Amino acid sequence: MPGYAMEKEQVQARLARIEGQVRGIARMVDEDRYCIDVLDQVASVTKALQGVAIGLVHEHLAHCVADAVGESDQAGQAKIDEATTAIARLVRS
Amino acid sequence: MPGYAMEKEQVQARLARIEGQVRGIARMVDEDRYCIDVLDQVASVTKALQGVAIGLVHEHLAHCVADAVGESDQAGQAKIDEATTAIARLVRS
Amino acid sequence: MPGYAMEKEQVQARLARIEGQVRGIARMVDEDRYCIDVLDQVASVTKALQGVAIGLVHEHLAHCVADAVGESDQAGQAKIDEATTAIARLVRS
Amino acid sequence: MPGYAMEKEQVQARLARIEGQVRGIARMVDEDRYCIDVLDQVASVTKALQGVAIGLVHEHLAHCVADAVGESDQAGQAKIDEATTAIARLVRS
Repeated sequence: MPGYAMEKEQVQARLARIEGQVRGIARMVDEDRYCIDVLDQVASVTKALQGVAIGLVHEHLAHCVADAVGESDQAGQAKIDEATTAIARLVRS
Repeated sequence: MPGYAMEKEQVQARLARIEGQVRGIARMVDEDRYCIDVLDQVASVTKALQGVAIGLVHEHLAHCVADAVGESDQAGQAKIDEATTAIARLVRS
Repeated sequence: MPGYAMEKEQVQARLARIEGQVRGIARMVDEDRYCIDVLDQVASVTKALQGVAIGLVHEHLAHCVADAVGESDQAGQAKIDEATTAIARLVRS
Repeated sequence: MPGYAMEKEQVQARLARIEGQVRGIARMVDEDRYCIDVLDQVASVTKALQGVAIGLVHEHLAHCVADAVGESDQAGQAKIDEATTAIARLVRS
C-alpha cells in the first residue's frame, strides 16, 4: 500500500481527530489561553486537513482518474482537467 | 472596529461552524460522495481556519504586542519575534 | 485546449515574467520602498509561481501519468504515487 | 539579532539567489527535464520567497509598526490593521 493511500476508515479516523482538535481550540479560546498557543493549534489542524486532502487526491487519481484514462482518451482528459482544478484550489487555499 | 478584529464570541461562532463543516465532510466520506466534492469542502474548511488564524494574529498584534511595545523596547521586540515565528508557521502550513 | 494546459512556450513566458518580478522586488528593496508594497509583490510572485506549478501538474497528469496508466496498472500506480508526493510538496509549500 | 531579522543585504542576497533559481527552472523546462524535478524546484523557490516574506514581516513589525505604536494608539492600530491585511495575503497565497 503506497504512502498516500487512505482507506475510508483512516480518512474517518483523521476527520474525527480533526473535529476533536477544533473543539479543543474552541475550549482554549474560552479559557483565554495565550493567542500564540491557539494559533499554533490552528496551524496544526490546517496541516492535518491538508494531509486528508492529499490522501483524497491520491485515491481520486488512483481510482476515478486511472479508470477514466483506461476507458478513453477523452474521458481521461476530462477527469484530469477536473482533478487539476481541485488541486489548484488546495494549493491556493 | 477594523476588518480583522474578532471578538471572542465571533471566534467561537466561526470555530463552531468549522466543527460542523468537518462533521459534514465525515458524513460525505461515509456516503461515498464524489472525491472532488469532498476535496472542495476540505479546501473550504482550510480557508475558514486561516480566516480564524488571521483574526487571532490581529488580536495578538493589537493587544499583547502593542502593550509590550508600550512597556519597553526589549519586551516589544521579544513579542514581535514570537509573533513572527507564529506567522511563519501559518504561512508555511 | 483545457484551462490548465500550458505549452512549453507559455511556461517559459511565465517564468521570464516571474524572473523580472523578482528583479523588480530587489529594486524595490534597494530603493527602500514601503515594506507592505514589497510584501504584496512577494505574495504576487508566489501566486504566479503556483500558477506555473499547477500548469506543470496538469501536463504531468495528462502525459506521463496517463501514458503510464495506459501501459500497465503497476506503472500507472507508481506514477500516481510519485505525482501525489509532488502535489503534497506544493500544497505544503 | 533575532532569528527573523534580515538586513537589506541579506534580503538582496536571497532575492538574487531566487532570481537565479527561477532562471534555472526555465533552463530545466528548455532541456525537457522531468516534470516532477521541475515541480520540486518550483516548490523550493516558493518556500524561499516565503522566507523572504517572513523576514520582511519581521522588519515591518519591529520598525514601522513598533514606531507607530510608540507614537499613538491610533497610529499603532492603523499600522497593525495594514500589517494584518498583508499577512492575510501571504497566508492565502
